[in-house]
Amino acid sequence: MDLLKQRVKEDGVVIDERILKVDGFLNHQIDAQLMHEIGNTFHEQFKNEGVTKVLTIEASGIAPAIMTALHFNVPCLFAKKAKPSTLTKDVYHADIHSFTKNNTSTVIVSDEFLSEDDRVLIIDDFLANGDASLGLNEIVQQAQATTVGIGIVVEKSFQQGRKRLEDSGLNVSSLCKVASLKGNNVTFVDETVSEEV
Amino acid sequence: MDLLKQRVKEDGVVIDERILKVDGFLNHQIDAQLMHEIGNTFHEQFKNEGVTKVLTIEASGIAPAIMTALHFNVPCLFAKKAKPSTLTKDVYHADIHSFTKNNTSTVIVSDEFLSEDDRVLIIDDFLANGDASLGLNEIVQQAQATTVGIGIVVEKSFQQGRKRLEDSGLNVSSLCKVASLKGNNVTFVDETVSEEV
Repeated sequence: MDLLKQRVKEDGVVIDERILKVDGFLNHQIDAQLMHEIGNTFHEQFKNEGVTKVLTIEASGIAPAIMTALHFNVPCLFAKKAKPSTLTKDVYHADIHSFTKNNTSTVIVSDEFLSEDDRVLIIDDFLANGDASLGLNEIVQQAQATTVGIGIVVEKSFQQGRKRLEDSGLNVSSLCKVASLKGNNVTFVDETVSEEV
Repeated sequence: MDLLKQRVKEDGVVIDERILKVDGFLNHQIDAQLMHEIGNTFHEQFKNEGVTKVLTIEASGIAPAIMTALHFNVPCLFAKKAKPSTLTKDVYHADIHSFTKNNTSTVIVSDEFLSEDDRVLIIDDFLANGDASLGLNEIVQQAQATTVGIGIVVEKSFQQGRKRLEDSGLNVSSLCKVASLKGNNVTFVDETVSEEV
């Protein structure tokens, strides 16, 4: 998605060789028109999958997920970061390790809003090691629902996320794939030599 | 906004005389079409105010705020709940007491994304005692920007929020005003006897 790549190039801040900060249009300030276009693109990619629900995690996943849900005309559901006291029998839950924050949090989804008939599209802002998407997929499995795909805004292709998701049999679509953050520079997968050959 | 009132009536769960749970379409599962319509309504109400930015708080404010920003074609900015360690000199911050959760958290906005030229529309999901909106307005003031209005999805008119915001000189627009939650029932302001006279 060229519009997205352009914004990553222009506004992304390379913190180190593993962390890319996109607070200017995705993780703090959000470009609403870009999110709308992202939603449209995910809809194009998954429109034949019979999606009944879009699932994400608070907080940065909400903007791309709600715009995707708008195009599908289905509800958006966001997993909430929860305290242990909220882990009642009425919730599905998963433990998710955050690569950027280096902590583990439990997220929950009420069993009211996910059932075995649901065909779920998981949307997230970043794919690093895949823990968030794997955790959301675990919640979908607890509900005996079906994950039809994973839509990622920015994939860091030099980390293990895609491989771990694909090894779990999940269909991953990333709108922008970062091959490297070396030299304080963002290089996309389709700019690397191996892709050009 | 009749569509919203209908959803509150149908899907809202009265927890007690002061707490209304709307997890079915706003605070956990989100109705994307309804949020789009909410964004359209806020745009109609504030379109002559020269809005340059929509400001909200994570997580439940993001969906109505991003849809409002979409209609205004301006960026959406969400204040982040922060740990004390993140309170550097590069951030605006405010302490906000949550009525529902009965705790106080500090929220921050990076000074990169708000400046004195900004005309800010604050959007939030609920108005109870007004602490969230007052905290966001404090952040706008720290940036020497201007708050042009406060757009609220669900106002609990039996609490002090509106009065406190208006006493601060703020222009408040609520799409749905709950007069009472007594008797396990949602009564809107325009349904009460005093309004009908």
